[in-house]
Amino acid sequence: MRATLMYGAGDVRIETVPDPVLQQPTDAIVRVVRACVCGSDLHPYHSMPGSAQGNPMGHELIGVVEETGSAVTNVRKGDFVIAPFAFSDNTCVFCREGFQTSCVHGGWYGSPETGGLQAELARIPLADGSLVVVPDVDPATADEGLLNSLLTLSDVYLTGYHAAHMAQVQPGQIVTVIGDGAVGLSAVLAAKQLGAERIILMGRHAARTDLGREFGATDVVAERGAEGISKVMDLTGGEGSHAVLEAVGHMPAYEQAYGVVRPGGIISRVGVPQYEDAPVGFGSLFGKNARLAGGPAPVRAYQEAAITQVLAGEINPGKVFDATLPLEDVAEAYRLMDSRESLKVALRP
Amino acid sequence: MRATLMYGAGDVRIETVPDPVLQQPTDAIVRVVRACVCGSDLHPYHSMPGSAQGNPMGHELIGVVEETGSAVTNVRKGDFVIAPFAFSDNTCVFCREGFQTSCVHGGWYGSPETGGLQAELARIPLADGSLVVVPDVDPATADEGLLNSLLTLSDVYLTGYHAAHMAQVQPGQIVTVIGDGAVGLSAVLAAKQLGAERIILMGRHAARTDLGREFGATDVVAERGAEGISKVMDLTGGEGSHAVLEAVGHMPAYEQAYGVVRPGGIISRVGVPQYEDAPVGFGSLFGKNARLAGGPAPVRAYQEAAITQVLAGEINPGKVFDATLPLEDVAEAYRLMDSRESLKVALRP
Repeated sequence: MRATLMYGAGDVRIETVPDPVLQQPTDAIVRVVRACVCGSDLHPYHSMPGSAQGNPMGHELIGVVEETGSAVTNVRKGDFVIAPFAFSDNTCVFCREGFQTSCVHGGWYGSPETGGLQAELARIPLADGSLVVVPDVDPATADEGLLNSLLTLSDVYLTGYHAAHMAQVQPGQIVTVIGDGAVGLSAVLAAKQLGAERIILMGRHAARTDLGREFGATDVVAERGAEGISKVMDLTGGEGSHAVLEAVGHMPAYEQAYGVVRPGGIISRVGVPQYEDAPVGFGSLFGKNARLAGGPAPVRAYQEAAITQVLAGEINPGKVFDATLPLEDVAEAYRLMDSRESLKVALRP
Repeated sequence: MRATLMYGAGDVRIETVPDPVLQQPTDAIVRVVRACVCGSDLHPYHSMPGSAQGNPMGHELIGVVEETGSAVTNVRKGDFVIAPFAFSDNTCVFCREGFQTSCVHGGWYGSPETGGLQAELARIPLADGSLVVVPDVDPATADEGLLNSLLTLSDVYLTGYHAAHMAQVQPGQIVTVIGDGAVGLSAVLAAKQLGAERIILMGRHAARTDLGREFGATDVVAERGAEGISKVMDLTGGEGSHAVLEAVGHMPAYEQAYGVVRPGGIISRVGVPQYEDAPVGFGSLFGKNARLAGGPAPVRAYQEAAITQVLAGEINPGKVFDATLPLEDVAEAYRLMDSRESLKVALRP
């Protein structure tokens, strides 16, 4: 099959590799209908050391089940499915508590052992827990917009949703979203779903913040740093934001977050922190009882409800995709996202 | 009147000072029935630079209203009251959201302007928001244990309660409390009230951990650092704690907290952090979706319910007081707490 490998920073190739095979009775093989490139794929795209054998890439897909191991009972050949970006058994104690990204048997795609999902075929470990069936949709005839929206339930929309969920966004609240990437815009849409009354989007790319407004942002703040903080404080009558959804991961975004959160408010991070230590003492979080939440999104916990919303046409998170390329052009897809020419690129094998 | 002043590290004196007078129509003057020394009073006791005029001390009291300003309507002369350790109007937006320690008009005792509560009389600003009446109790004849329990509702018990509340402790959960001081023990009692099934107390002073067991601790871990973490992980079958109530404020306690919190769990701090930066990245909080909460306790938010529980005899948080001294002996009270000879000392003017 054709699959994506990264050989080092900026060096993404599509190559012919052996088809994946069932390794465990709990595995399934899925034929990819759509995959995509994630903002987090750009981290190795910037910094991966050179590698002779290359690393398989991708962790988002919708597809059709091709084959199942003998122990798989929840999905069968022909099912149209979504794969959460992390695999999990969905039965362990942490899965039951809603944190499937900490599944005691789970793991991540994109290693030589697990393979990547930017490919024609994928092996899905723990298929009963790691695939969710989309009912009554034939991917061969489905509308492109619907496919895009379903694809966002593999990661990006539900990562934004996780930010809003962990921030305990409630009807009537003020929510500030930091970052106008695909996750930030997804967080806007999710905050709107949870009833936020006012959604302030901090971002400076007009095409993106326009989509943010379409998703529910009531205000856009282009300024950053102290200026951005003071703009948000002005917009909130000096009170600050009940919830701050931080979808960037760099320290200046964290600093903005604690600058605009109100007393008792919650900062919820889904941008992977590019730092380990950060201010949490009296002057930043403690003094005003501000809270810190977030982490890798257990999208599995949110999928059934989101599939229902997408199929009912209540939400169209797939609008974050502004390009679809053939899988053969995956290198161009990375380039478009890295250069910010595209917000998010879908891949069609 | 007689009042407590601190002139520098280790230098606490009881002196005659002018009686406080109404300064604002929203003020009340309260005659102190009991005051006490707080763990946080020991910070200046260790580090306060020498001062010629001295600093008034104390922020906890129960007492009887002596005089009220013309705008005060919620309390009147003769009422037996509890003063939360911070004053607040209890009507501003942050008060209404339950974070009275961030009241836009509120503030703290212990400055030359506001005075201290380790005294015979106290001026209470914003009395309508900052005094809560204890119904049907005559302090002149009340049982000493009851007075002690009511006195803890000024700060220490409800600070422990705040830790448990912000950790969203729920029935059936595992809770770890770090610190066996009066606040840590109060947090044990509060976690028990919220239905925690298992309460692991990390502390090494047998007399204190014994009271912790009486308050509801099911396990005591005397070890600290990596050894303490591994003990707690063993006790929880390797899963970790749903809630960690951190009642110390030093970095090793924070490190223990993120070491024992389970995926998706909440660390709730009420020990004032003696650090500003701390680990919050992938390796500490983010990777396992652990959350961080806590801050100065808005005890005003919890007082009515706690008074009811104390008067009904459902809780006896006053057991944290193991000594009562005359106000004249306040210097000895500080010494007893500093040397750990006493857990917490009440003062009787």
